[in-house]
Amino acid sequence: MQDSKPRGRVTIPTDIDVIPQTKELLARWGADAIRDCDGTDFPQELKDTGAKVYATYYTTRKDNAWAKAHPEEVQQCYIMTAFYTADEGPLSIPLMKGISPELMQPNTRDDITRWWEVVDRTTGQPIPAAAWCYDESTGCVIIDKPAPYHEYTVSFLAYLIWDPVHMYNAVVNDWKDFEHQITFDVRQPKTHQYTMERLRKFIETHPYVNVIRYTTFFHQFTLMFDELKREKYVDWYGYSASVSPYILQQFEEEVGYKFRPEFIIDQGYYNNQYRVPSKEYKDFQAFQRREVAKLVREMTDITHEYGKEAMMFLGDHWIGTEPFMPEFQQAGVDAVVGSVGNGSTLRLISDIKGVKYTEGRFLPYFFPDTFHEGGDPVREAKENWVTARRAILRSPIDRIGYGGYLKLACEFPEFLDYVESVCNEFRELYGNIKGTTPYCVKTVAVLNCWGKMRAWGCHMVHHALYQKQNYSYAGVIEALSGAPFDVKFISFDDIKADPHVLDSIDVLINVGDGDTAHTGGKVWEDPEIAAAVKGFVYRGGGLIGVGEPGGHQYQGRYLQLAAPLGVEKETGFTLNYDKYNWEEHRDHFILADCPDHDVDFGEGKKSIYALEGTEILIQRDKEVQMAAHDYGQGRGVYISGLPYSFINNRVLYRAILWAAHAEDQLHTWFSTNCNAEVHAYVKNGKYCVVNNTYEPQDTTVYRGDGSSFDLHLDANEIRWYEI
Amino acid sequence: MQDSKPRGRVTIPTDIDVIPQTKELLARWGADAIRDCDGTDFPQELKDTGAKVYATYYTTRKDNAWAKAHPEEVQQCYIMTAFYTADEGPLSIPLMKGISPELMQPNTRDDITRWWEVVDRTTGQPIPAAAWCYDESTGCVIIDKPAPYHEYTVSFLAYLIWDPVHMYNAVVNDWKDFEHQITFDVRQPKTHQYTMERLRKFIETHPYVNVIRYTTFFHQFTLMFDELKREKYVDWYGYSASVSPYILQQFEEEVGYKFRPEFIIDQGYYNNQYRVPSKEYKDFQAFQRREVAKLVREMTDITHEYGKEAMMFLGDHWIGTEPFMPEFQQAGVDAVVGSVGNGSTLRLISDIKGVKYTEGRFLPYFFPDTFHEGGDPVREAKENWVTARRAILRSPIDRIGYGGYLKLACEFPEFLDYVESVCNEFRELYGNIKGTTPYCVKTVAVLNCWGKMRAWGCHMVHHALYQKQNYSYAGVIEALSGAPFDVKFISFDDIKADPHVLDSIDVLINVGDGDTAHTGGKVWEDPEIAAAVKGFVYRGGGLIGVGEPGGHQYQGRYLQLAAPLGVEKETGFTLNYDKYNWEEHRDHFILADCPDHDVDFGEGKKSIYALEGTEILIQRDKEVQMAAHDYGQGRGVYISGLPYSFINNRVLYRAILWAAHAEDQLHTWFSTNCNAEVHAYVKNGKYCVVNNTYEPQDTTVYRGDGSSFDLHLDANEIRWYEI
Repeated sequence: MQDSKPRGRVTIPTDIDVIPQTKELLARWGADAIRDCDGTDFPQELKDTGAKVYATYYTTRKDNAWAKAHPEEVQQCYIMTAFYTADEGPLSIPLMKGISPELMQPNTRDDITRWWEVVDRTTGQPIPAAAWCYDESTGCVIIDKPAPYHEYTVSFLAYLIWDPVHMYNAVVNDWKDFEHQITFDVRQPKTHQYTMERLRKFIETHPYVNVIRYTTFFHQFTLMFDELKREKYVDWYGYSASVSPYILQQFEEEVGYKFRPEFIIDQGYYNNQYRVPSKEYKDFQAFQRREVAKLVREMTDITHEYGKEAMMFLGDHWIGTEPFMPEFQQAGVDAVVGSVGNGSTLRLISDIKGVKYTEGRFLPYFFPDTFHEGGDPVREAKENWVTARRAILRSPIDRIGYGGYLKLACEFPEFLDYVESVCNEFRELYGNIKGTTPYCVKTVAVLNCWGKMRAWGCHMVHHALYQKQNYSYAGVIEALSGAPFDVKFISFDDIKADPHVLDSIDVLINVGDGDTAHTGGKVWEDPEIAAAVKGFVYRGGGLIGVGEPGGHQYQGRYLQLAAPLGVEKETGFTLNYDKYNWEEHRDHFILADCPDHDVDFGEGKKSIYALEGTEILIQRDKEVQMAAHDYGQGRGVYISGLPYSFINNRVLYRAILWAAHAEDQLHTWFSTNCNAEVHAYVKNGKYCVVNNTYEPQDTTVYRGDGSSFDLHLDANEIRWYEI
Repeated sequence: MQDSKPRGRVTIPTDIDVIPQTKELLARWGADAIRDCDGTDFPQELKDTGAKVYATYYTTRKDNAWAKAHPEEVQQCYIMTAFYTADEGPLSIPLMKGISPELMQPNTRDDITRWWEVVDRTTGQPIPAAAWCYDESTGCVIIDKPAPYHEYTVSFLAYLIWDPVHMYNAVVNDWKDFEHQITFDVRQPKTHQYTMERLRKFIETHPYVNVIRYTTFFHQFTLMFDELKREKYVDWYGYSASVSPYILQQFEEEVGYKFRPEFIIDQGYYNNQYRVPSKEYKDFQAFQRREVAKLVREMTDITHEYGKEAMMFLGDHWIGTEPFMPEFQQAGVDAVVGSVGNGSTLRLISDIKGVKYTEGRFLPYFFPDTFHEGGDPVREAKENWVTARRAILRSPIDRIGYGGYLKLACEFPEFLDYVESVCNEFRELYGNIKGTTPYCVKTVAVLNCWGKMRAWGCHMVHHALYQKQNYSYAGVIEALSGAPFDVKFISFDDIKADPHVLDSIDVLINVGDGDTAHTGGKVWEDPEIAAAVKGFVYRGGGLIGVGEPGGHQYQGRYLQLAAPLGVEKETGFTLNYDKYNWEEHRDHFILADCPDHDVDFGEGKKSIYALEGTEILIQRDKEVQMAAHDYGQGRGVYISGLPYSFINNRVLYRAILWAAHAEDQLHTWFSTNCNAEVHAYVKNGKYCVVNNTYEPQDTTVYRGDGSSFDLHLDANEIRWYEI
């Protein structure tokens, strides 16, 4: 009856108890795909709607019979104990202290003298296996004669005897009377073979399914819980749970050097993305990507053999399938779906190449935490949509979707209305922008140790999670996710491999704390890299440094980018130098749109001072927060921190233009009011003006030719124009 | 006429135009020594007073005839240019840019290929002398084929053609028509010989002088001015101006390895006291101490031969005569005089051993900056006296004195009255406390890379100079200067040489920023040192860490003292770990005397979090500012910063007692009101209660036996009791 309405590009969840409502919403929202309800038969009525059906497939769990029969192929994780100080006598280190015994179990099946490591953290050296033993009865490693007052840790392998995501769901939802789902390791020989049979059986027994939604493939990101079942450690990018002696021996053979647990343990930091990555860890990740892609390909081949699509959920067990790395292109995945927390996480999905389509799962989930009496799901949905929309306008996902219990959503009619409007808005904008590249003012590259492997995920500890220590940096990435720039993520290794990678860049951005992977740390001691970056700026490039750009003590500098940026950090080493440059220049181009010419720097930075010749834009209590500097033919801008806000978007926008000597391009596809943005799709002959706020806005809009008009926008409005 | 009044222990300045006033003040203030007026004959009337006469003797200047005749023996300084980035072509580095040409002149007399160094700061390597040349006409070093976009510096020797202190005085006082005093180097052979003759002549022509006040000996601390004659660099502890090829060759022979300018240049940091000292720099300082002491001894021997006393001014040219180091004991110095800026600088003087007496020069100087219409010299004098008095009560100087133009002081009768009261108060307290050790509750040691060499001067850039970056740390030293503890300063080298140095200590203090000499930096990678310090605490010792104690990234920790202190710094590397310990315990013993149980942490520290089991005393916005922790049998206290204040004195006092398990000793020679303090001199049977504020105070005073009484004190009052 509603055939005249545009349809498609929307996925909704369903349940056995909401079949009529599902049908109604399929129509109202124009949805064309349904997520299978877990563990039940799929109703004929919904099959008859013609909507595509997605079925979630758990590659590594939901088969405890298999897991129990093959305990040696249960998944494993490397863990380090806390630090223990030795007294004069023997030292006993309890392995599982601080870790939920329901989650993990030490692996004593494999040779512990080979796969465990007891490290004297005072000397930094592992101690010989003969110097320690493991007492299974107490669960302690005992060092008979430790060096007094040295600190020791034990690195050991543990089986993941409860899938961490299953555990999380069980704890959060307070499930009773259920069996812990044990994880099995598809990488190991018996499970490998079994898995392929199991997959075939699943597909054969679910003929109505069109899309196998893999959740995900083989390796859970690092997620640990303590004895109180509280989250203890989480790293959405962590590879610690992708290990087993079986694959580590293969790794050893491939790389030709001996594996050490420390490669994964990394002093207890588990190679999180703040760590400047070691060669061994990069080797290990590359090995995993290749091996995982091979195995994924086996499953996608089977999927295709049955005429189904293979969709990857970017979350949970996604380790090894880094979607921005080349190996992913060989994996045969048809589609990627992921959760959208903000603009950055949207582009984590939408920028993935080599798949037929991408899909974003929007918030809020239809869960009781939001959908309860007094809850305001519309507000949450608006925030999520408006935040993500900026990024969609730069790089659209192909589909949107929702998750959770449809029944709950149906009790909020205003929410149903709002989502209907979102679905229509999405389809309209998708139609207007798909197949073209939006107008990009400049090409900007974020430079760090990870490059494209952590594209859009820089600083992220867990998916879109706020952290006091990183929001002032993640704000830059979020701003870029919806800004009119061609945004690249390049690594120091990329520069090392080919300095010409910088040739196509207008402005480099280095953002983060010193001695982290985000700013480079000891990488700056490599003259090739230092000279390549400085040369890029000196010859006319732009550089924006946020926080402690190039922060690493070396050869008379803390900030290794001090020369191009014109600022340095006072670490005490230069207190003896008198500092006379404190005058502010708040009339600078970069600050022109800021109320009172002031900026919210978030956590900011202490003790930054300007070198001679640097123009300070803002200093507070003699600590420079923002500065601009000429370096050869190029320009550097220092910013102490830049949390995400519409004003800060504008600050970054202007900073990029200034750094690129492109102040004259300001009034090109531009809204004078920074709460609104203009995006142009020249090839399609379209442009839009979008109000990113929940209030009406007035602005002056500049077209590509510099002509302008005044415009009033309703709250959240997006307005489309022909060029 | 005033013979009945106590006299002595006071030195005053004089001038030819204030002879009657000098006589009057000698009487009123009970002064017994007069500082010679510079460059004039000493009046007979003053000779007749019987007061000792001090004559300032300039060892290294005020003889331009000699300096000009021996330009090769003018003093020299090592200087590094700024950093210069090479483009594609040759690079030209102007040596003197940023340096006053009136102050210095490059030394091209000696072999520049041997004594200068052009360093590629991008590789960290010096470039061969054949790769650069010096163009005397432009004053530039030219590198013909630099590596493009590498940064270069030039380290060179320069003659100090104007004494920096003379220059400073000339600039500040806007002197006209005078000759720049050129510094000559007493260490060099001709000047050495000449100096001894010159000294004899000086003594012979000043028969009325009793005390030769050396200002000081041979080497000016590092002090540079820029082209605008503004101070460019100052380091009261800097050895950069104590160099010459002549002595560097001797140094080379002694240590047996080749000298490099970089030993002194130190990447442009000039080995300031924040730098973890290199072996080469420590060798150089030791060499200088020995050589300087030998030469000082020649001069003090001559002084004694004429029956005069040798007094050393601790300032200006004092480098090499480190008074807390053993070589000083061989130098034959009779007395040390120095300027008193606060308690720390008082003890810089009063703790010196091996001299007959010490003298503190108090503020304000009788200079027009204070002694002008509307000026308030009494306020300045009170602040100076009351601040220093705390320290005098712990370790008295033997004399006090004033400097400047007496004529100016005479125009402020209230000031004359106040100083009279100070002189009387000083003599009384000196009589009461001299010859005994004040009661010490505990033995406390400040642990850093310098130990006793920088006793009481830790964090100091220039004498008592305030810095935003260090007042939160210097406050600890200032608090200790007047606190009832036996305070030691020990170095990591001391521990390395003999770990038993810790046996006599109750509480160790490590205070400062990470990776500085104050907290140790890479020293913590030495297992002997790490184990000795942790063992000390584990076995029952106390540890107080302020700022970033043991801050140095190594083996899974940023704070190498994390284990005993129970806190760690979030550098990004542990963001993945969930942190649940945030509960405050404001009822802790340490906070009991703080209003609202809150503390001023000064600059504080960001991103400190508590480990499990640590008791957080204060956290702000989830950043721990103060915490307490048990470690083995010992205790650790973390404080983020502790600027000097009376409340913070008390915080530190209680923290030390708590760390030493000595809470029960709180009410021993104790004032409940922290604005007052109690000092006991058991051997002398005396104790005093002193009001450190400018308002009256009420308090309860606890005696050594725990008995107590209430007391009202007038502003600044000190009240003495018999035990």
